[in-house]
Parts: sequence; structure tokens; C-alpha cells
Amino acid sequence: MSFRFEILHQSKKSRARVGRIHTPHGVIDTPNFVAVGTNGTLKALDNRMVDSIGLQLMFCNTYHLLLQPGTQVVRRAGGLHKFIHRNMPIITDSGGFQVFSLAYGSVADELKSRGAKKRDGHVLKIDEEGVVFRSYRDGTKIRLTPESSIQAQKDLGADIIIPFDELPPYHIGRDKLKKSLERTHRWEQRSLEEHLRNPQDQAIYAVIHGGVDPDFRKESCAFLSNLPFDGYSIGGSLGKTKPEMIEMLTSLLPQLPPEKPNHLLGIGDLESLHQCLPLGIDTFDSSYPTRAARHGLLLTQEGGIKVEKGENANHFGPIEPACTCWTCQHFTLAYLHHLFKARELTAYTLATVHNLHFMVELMRRNREAILNDHI
Amino acid sequence: MSFRFEILHQSKKSRARVGRIHTPHGVIDTPNFVAVGTNGTLKALDNRMVDSIGLQLMFCNTYHLLLQPGTQVVRRAGGLHKFIHRNMPIITDSGGFQVFSLAYGSVADELKSRGAKKRDGHVLKIDEEGVVFRSYRDGTKIRLTPESSIQAQKDLGADIIIPFDELPPYHIGRDKLKKSLERTHRWEQRSLEEHLRNPQDQAIYAVIHGGVDPDFRKESCAFLSNLPFDGYSIGGSLGKTKPEMIEMLTSLLPQLPPEKPNHLLGIGDLESLHQCLPLGIDTFDSSYPTRAARHGLLLTQEGGIKVEKGENANHFGPIEPACTCWTCQHFTLAYLHHLFKARELTAYTLATVHNLHFMVELMRRNREAILNDHI
Repeated sequence: MSFRFEILHQSKKSRARVGRIHTPHGVIDTPNFVAVGTNGTLKALDNRMVDSIGLQLMFCNTYHLLLQPGTQVVRRAGGLHKFIHRNMPIITDSGGFQVFSLAYGSVADELKSRGAKKRDGHVLKIDEEGVVFRSYRDGTKIRLTPESSIQAQKDLGADIIIPFDELPPYHIGRDKLKKSLERTHRWEQRSLEEHLRNPQDQAIYAVIHGGVDPDFRKESCAFLSNLPFDGYSIGGSLGKTKPEMIEMLTSLLPQLPPEKPNHLLGIGDLESLHQCLPLGIDTFDSSYPTRAARHGLLLTQEGGIKVEKGENANHFGPIEPACTCWTCQHFTLAYLHHLFKARELTAYTLATVHNLHFMVELMRRNREAILNDHI
Repeated sequence: MSFRFEILHQSKKSRARVGRIHTPHGVIDTPNFVAVGTNGTLKALDNRMVDSIGLQLMFCNTYHLLLQPGTQVVRRAGGLHKFIHRNMPIITDSGGFQVFSLAYGSVADELKSRGAKKRDGHVLKIDEEGVVFRSYRDGTKIRLTPESSIQAQKDLGADIIIPFDELPPYHIGRDKLKKSLERTHRWEQRSLEEHLRNPQDQAIYAVIHGGVDPDFRKESCAFLSNLPFDGYSIGGSLGKTKPEMIEMLTSLLPQLPPEKPNHLLGIGDLESLHQCLPLGIDTFDSSYPTRAARHGLLLTQEGGIKVEKGENANHFGPIEPACTCWTCQHFTLAYLHHLFKARELTAYTLATVHNLHFMVELMRRNREAILNDHI
């Protein structure tokens, strides 16, 4: 079945809405959390376990898959779904974010004056055509352009793809940001044209840019919503603080076509999620819950549990009594505490299962709250 | 149900036999492979997955569990089976092997002149009473004696336990080896007495010692088979080469009471296993198949596959077409190759599942071969 978005309920209390994205590999109930499976797997889980947890959309990174195993291998395997044995929806990004993070460093790098090391060497050239960088794996030169990024994403065959964009540094003059925005728009348009030559039953989400400048965000919404994209993701610099991000999103979201789905790129910590839901965000991707799990932070309705704390050594019940996840159904918090203390790999698997299940359940409850106009 | 061993078939071709060990947590078909779950988990697997693979006996290490989480914690949890959520048989060792490996280094350490660093500091005192060592985790002094080792194993509550013994260095004079053997026999007798005060439905296997000296091995068999042990494990220095080990075992096994089960400690590579089966070994424990998996060596009937080899990048079938393991049922060798190349934790899980399933199937086929007098 082809891509289609339907809105089931618009909250009377906020801009939040409950919807359903139909894709060739099944439905995504919105709003929803999207876990990051960079290399075609969630860290420490196999994809059958991911299915059983009910994660409806997985985010894979074109940059990583381009370098290993190469998108040609995935194409020969019959596409990413077959290669990684996942029968549910997948979204891929363009690779731009990672390449430009290498070139400019992340916002966090900038704020902490890190990233000088990252900056040198890897990115060889950036011009109107695209970018040339060196593979950190084998040193080969790779050219990434709007067209080649889309071709790579055609090889991968995800249900939703993303056009090639430039990620400008956070600290950038207004003139340079404007130039970057205009180039990104040209690149996104080229990406869309490349995609439309062979849609291959994929949907494509634009990336709204403009940093934290309201005028630029407005310009970006106006330009991109005039093009036949299937949905809109929000990218670029989202600000250096949460309030800055929320302010930007509050003014941005009403400018997006309401009948199309939107996606907030790279944000999914619980606090941001809580604040973004009333603004009408449909999907969020983040590695927060899976990374937190590997660092021994278990998410529960009562807050986070640091599993290695001594008080958990003798807790012979599940992490959460009411939790129905595989981990809570079979193992105790005391055992998890022990596995973390003993640095056993099994610990990361069991904690990740729990946190991911928590996110799936959290979003189910959030959709219910929206249906009841409580959000 | 209490411990009981029955022999179903004695091969006409060799000393190999097919049997069944009954334990309070179910049956162990023999001969069989025993995987090592040092800290109460097989590395990278959860114990429900281990059950589904059909691994009938798991080996846990008292030394490690004593230091983390502590046997008191396990006792409070209701025993090791409950703590780790395993409903099938478990065997624990005495802790002696690890403590004396720290004190003397392993045979491999000795042969390679390693281990000097290991030797200093950790073991504080060895005398007739037992040994005092320092925990590598928190620096506390721990006293391990025949009585305290058995008490620790009572807290853990495994189906089969092992008496406290001394592991002498491989290079040791005959006089010193004799003294060590005699002390080990006294320690094993004290362990047995401590066990019999409160059998707690556990079985106890003696440890035959004597290094590669046929007279000492004979003496050890004679002494220990006169005591009411439930089975016999073979420990101590097994020689520095495979032929030396096989020679020792060939003369040793006929001296064990044939109606009781035996166990070869710490050996389970495929070549040794192949050579030991006709000698009549009932169970083997080894971390070989699980460690090999994490190092990217997949076991198959056609030999080992090094998963990271380039030729596997485009192999879009399972590791082995006929294999019925979870990994082969769901994932391809190409995907596994990719996960290893990308250093994903999921790789270790999927490879371990396959190798463990391989061992379970290999031993099933071996039992069939013995039933047909082909071994």
C-alpha cells in the first residue's frame, strides 16, 4: 500500500493530533517515537525482538550504511527491509547531517569548543554540486550530492526518505545562514526531482531549515510546502537550549500544511517530547532511550532508575510491577543490577528492551490523552 | 526429583556411552556439552533464549558470584535458578580454580612465562585451612575453605556442586605434586562432609587430580571413588598438549566407577571433544563456542566460517541452509557480516545463538552415533 496520512482526531486543547501514517510496510500510529537503528539494528537487540516490542518506525542512517556495507550490497539483498529482516516501516536520512557534523562539528561541539580535530581532513570539498568526503573506514573518497543521496536511498528502499540538505554551524552570521538556507532549498528541490523520476513507492519528507531565525524558518516553510513533498521534517540548528527550541517550534508548526505528517529530527528525550506533543509533532526520532539503557538508566513512569545503585541489589521484583515487557516478565531488577555490575552484554539487551517498550507504551498513552483532549 | 544417573547404551566400539542424568531441574542427556555462564548468564544471551536453544546444563562460577553479587544476595533471591531465571540444571565449581589461577597463573601463562603480574598481591595466604585472597572488585579479604566453598554453593543451590581443591602449577616437582594431591584429597573429603550435613537435594562431583602422572591419577581415582560422591570430574593440570591430555584420560577413565557420571573440566573445543568422546566422557564444559562466536567464528558442519571475511558480504542466505537456529531462521550471513563489521552488539548475540545451537545439535548427533555403535 502506498503512503497516506490520515488524521483521526484534532485535540481541542492544543495543536496535538492523533493520526495514522500508512506505508508499504504497515501503519505508524502518530504521534510516535522513532528509535534509531543506525546500522540497520537497534544496539543490542535483534530485529525480531524489535518487532515484538511494537516499534512501528525505525530510523536508519544512510551515511553509515553507505560506508558499511555499502548501499549496493543492500540493493542486491533486495533492499533494507530484507537485508535486516524487518517487515515494518523504515525511514532513512540523506547522509548530509553526518557529513556536515564532521565538517562543522555538532552544536554541542561548538558550544564546548570541541570538534577542531573532527573538522580537519574528512570533508574535502563543499560546493553547489554537493560534498566530497573521505570514508573513515577505508579512506576512499565519496561524493554525496542531492542526486547520489537519493540514489543511495533508492537502493536502501526505506518507506520514507529525506532530501539532501546542508547542516550549517550554529554560530553563523545571518548572511551566511541565508546563503546556506537557499542552497539547501536548491538541494532539496533537486532531491525531490531525482526522487520523482522513480518514486518506487517511497515517501519523501522535506527538511525545514532556518536555524532559530523566525523569518528564515517562515521562508523555509513557504518554499518547501509549495513543493509536492509527502511530509515535513524539522532539521537544522534547533537552538542551544530547550526553551529556544520550543519557541522556534511554537511559531514554526502552524506554518506547515496541517494535512501532511511532520517529523522532529533527532529529538526524543522525555522532557522535550512532553513539551513538543502539544505543538503537534507527529513523530520524533532519538537514540536517547536506547543509549540511556546501555548506560544503566531505566525509564519508568515514576522516573529514571539508575540500575547500578546499591539499593537495587536486593530488589527481587521486576523493574516496574505493571510493565509487560520481556525483561520485566522474566527478570528482576536485582538480576539486571548484577548483570550491569558484572559488565555482561546481556545487561544492555535487557535494559534496551525495557526502555524501548516504555517509549512504545508512553506514546500509546499520549495518543489516548490526545483522543480525550487531555493534551 | 533427586539426582540419578542411568546408562541407556554402552557402545560396542568404544568406552562411549549414552546416558541420562536426572536432576531436580530436569534431565541432562549424555554425552553433552555444558556452556559456561560465569556470572549467571551466557555472554550476549538472555536465559530464556538459552532455554529455547535446548542447552541442558549451564556452568556458573562460584568465584565470580561470590564477588558479585555475593552468594548472600543469591540466597535471598531464592537461589541461583530463581535469581537468573533458569529452570534447567546448573553446575557450579568451588572457586578454587580461579583463586589458584590467580596465585600460580594458568598452564598457558606458565608456558608463555606470563602471569608474574597476576601472581602478586591477590592471594594472601594458602595453608591447610584454605586460602585467603583479596577481591579484585572492592579489595576486601575473602577466606575460601572447603567448608566456606560448599556453603557458598549451598547458597547458590546449583543441581551439581564441586568440592574445594587445589590447582597446582603445571611445572611442579613430584614431591610437591604429591603434597598438593594429598591436601586436595583432604579438602575434598572435608567438602563432602560439609555437603552431607545438608545435602539440600544437590549432587556433588569429586575432582580427580594428579596432573599427568599416571600413578597419582590412579591414586586419586582410588581415594575419591571410595567416598560417596555422586559423580567424578577430571581437573588439575591436563597436560600441555592434546596428545598428553588424551593419553592421561585414556588410562584414567577405566579407573572411574562406570555407573557414575563423569565430567571433563574446562575442555570443549571441537577437536578435543571428538577425541574424548570414545573415551567415555559424559559432560564437557567450555567457553570455546561462545567466545569463538564473539570473535566472529561461526561453527558449521563444514568447518568454521570467519564471518568478517569479505566473501561473506554478499552471502544472502543463512549461515547453514539446514540450520534451525533462531539466527539462521531469521538472518543472513551477509547481515551478520555487516553487523560484525559495524561492531554492533547484536552481532555477538546472533553468532552466539548459532554456535550454541550447533553444539547442542552436534552432541545430539554424537549420542545417536553412540547408540548406533559408530563411536
